[in-house]
Amino acid sequence: MSEPSTAHPEIDVIAIGNAIVDVMAPCDDAEIARLGMAKGGMTLVDPARAHELYEAMGPAREISGGSAANTLAGLAALGAQCAFIGQVAQDQLGEVFAHDIRAGGIAFDTSSRAGDPATARCLIFVTPDGQRTMNTFLGASQFLPAAALDDTVIASARVLYLEGYLWDPEEPRKAMRRAIAAARNAGRQVAFTLSDGFVIARHGDDFRELIATGQIDILFANEHELAALTGVEDFHTGIEQVARTVPTVVVTRSENGAHAIRNGEHAHVPAEPIAHVVDTTGAGDLFAAGFLFGHVRHRTLAECLKLGAVCAAEIISHYGARPEADLAALVAEKIR
Amino acid sequence: MSEPSTAHPEIDVIAIGNAIVDVMAPCDDAEIARLGMAKGGMTLVDPARAHELYEAMGPAREISGGSAANTLAGLAALGAQCAFIGQVAQDQLGEVFAHDIRAGGIAFDTSSRAGDPATARCLIFVTPDGQRTMNTFLGASQFLPAAALDDTVIASARVLYLEGYLWDPEEPRKAMRRAIAAARNAGRQVAFTLSDGFVIARHGDDFRELIATGQIDILFANEHELAALTGVEDFHTGIEQVARTVPTVVVTRSENGAHAIRNGEHAHVPAEPIAHVVDTTGAGDLFAAGFLFGHVRHRTLAECLKLGAVCAAEIISHYGARPEADLAALVAEKIR
Repeated sequence: MSEPSTAHPEIDVIAIGNAIVDVMAPCDDAEIARLGMAKGGMTLVDPARAHELYEAMGPAREISGGSAANTLAGLAALGAQCAFIGQVAQDQLGEVFAHDIRAGGIAFDTSSRAGDPATARCLIFVTPDGQRTMNTFLGASQFLPAAALDDTVIASARVLYLEGYLWDPEEPRKAMRRAIAAARNAGRQVAFTLSDGFVIARHGDDFRELIATGQIDILFANEHELAALTGVEDFHTGIEQVARTVPTVVVTRSENGAHAIRNGEHAHVPAEPIAHVVDTTGAGDLFAAGFLFGHVRHRTLAECLKLGAVCAAEIISHYGARPEADLAALVAEKIR
Repeated sequence: MSEPSTAHPEIDVIAIGNAIVDVMAPCDDAEIARLGMAKGGMTLVDPARAHELYEAMGPAREISGGSAANTLAGLAALGAQCAFIGQVAQDQLGEVFAHDIRAGGIAFDTSSRAGDPATARCLIFVTPDGQRTMNTFLGASQFLPAAALDDTVIASARVLYLEGYLWDPEEPRKAMRRAIAAARNAGRQVAFTLSDGFVIARHGDDFRELIATGQIDILFANEHELAALTGVEDFHTGIEQVARTVPTVVVTRSENGAHAIRNGEHAHVPAEPIAHVVDTTGAGDLFAAGFLFGHVRHRTLAECLKLGAVCAAEIISHYGARPEADLAALVAEKIR
């Protein structure tokens, strides 16, 4: 048997996601209300609204973000081999995004896109309780073409990880469908995160079909997304229902920890204690990073959940959705 | 008597400085050596070297910077009325800089500059001891023209604050000379920070002449800059020498606190205790902010120094040279 020909041998996780730079500033609850934002949510904004909100925002910092990209940053910090596919524009924020993901040790070969629109950014208002309210201008990110994919590379990765947010725009959705086919044809696993209620409201039928037809191997959701997906209020009933056709289902429940079912086995992890919640941006993304790291390293289900909880706790302790601490060292200290 | 005609009535401090976005990442001492950087220093870099260093840098965050701009951010946070003059390009980092300074409540009316070069950035490598090693690509910042000044606005500010770094490029130097004349003609005070040894090495004669001819009312330096300026190794001899022609001289001495002489009166403040030094970027800038705030609010010399020490300690406790804490509340708690 010949070696598969690929520029990325032995990729643990390849992800397709939004290529976004986060623009983050603290604000108070009154400001959230005054600006007409839905606290804790993610709203897609057009350039005019993005401009209006940026004008109203306090002094900010820019840190690379994007849900799946954050997950890869965590995975790479833990020691996994990763590759990212996402669309930036040929501008300074695009350079920032590309630098940060590559500097994290993640392969990133998607060509930047000339002309308008600009690289995606997410205006994130962080309240004193650590809650983040996100306003995303998708920009170039929504124009990721299927042609940006290299099926050989996708076939060479153990897990293909897809971000639900990116299911909304048409071109990336086509690209993701093609990627799912490429991964499945190669006998690889497909992991999917539901991302947000609005995506489920718009594309729930797509997701339910993918799940029913056995195209998803690992599903990440929080409890609200699970309820929206299944239409079932009771958490345990909902997760059992999804687990009938999805081999691994992982559901996060904020301060109540997380629950998973893998091939009939149940496991639960409490939330890690956190001295001071600074900014919850990226908590779900880093939970997925920890869990997937355990998964590709063949850890027990309970250990996978614990890895997720430790990584989520790290990201909540500071501004930004990219890890600051040495995650590998942190995990070594907390697990075993 | 008619009101002076100005768009900025009652400005406490107007500053002219570099308009820079800081690009910051942690690194270890071996990396500093490997990249051939002088630890703790500031080096001007050309685009090729900036590219090389950025390629070598880890995942970073972008936070607005610039020495005098940082000082104004601190002053504005304390409650002072401020205005900034500095040159950005018409690009995304220029928008970031302009947003952040205006969002801090600082008037900023300098038109952005079309075409190359890009907005200035400073690649800052932060070692585990909190020391910062800076590599500045000056970009558009060095093309601030004298025509960008509005003499009426300068004449309306109590204090004109100038950053020594900006004395190096020719156009801003001309602009600053004109600003000094405008301020002095209006009977205003001129404050100057020496910024860095390399500036003194190149322009020390200019500075000594400005000082000897009584054109500087308030001089900020650290002890190394003072020695470079005066050629005198002994700290006390050096500060006394400068104080002969400069009414207020303020010298910071890192962990040894700071010393000032104002019209013959001496005062000293120890460094504020800091639980954990994260990043020293902006410590001098924020010391100047606290001191100048006390100065324009007619506080005692000892109080001015204490204000400087409290603001410097805040900035050292986190990444970035713009304040994160509520400086006004912090100062109210620490002083009286």
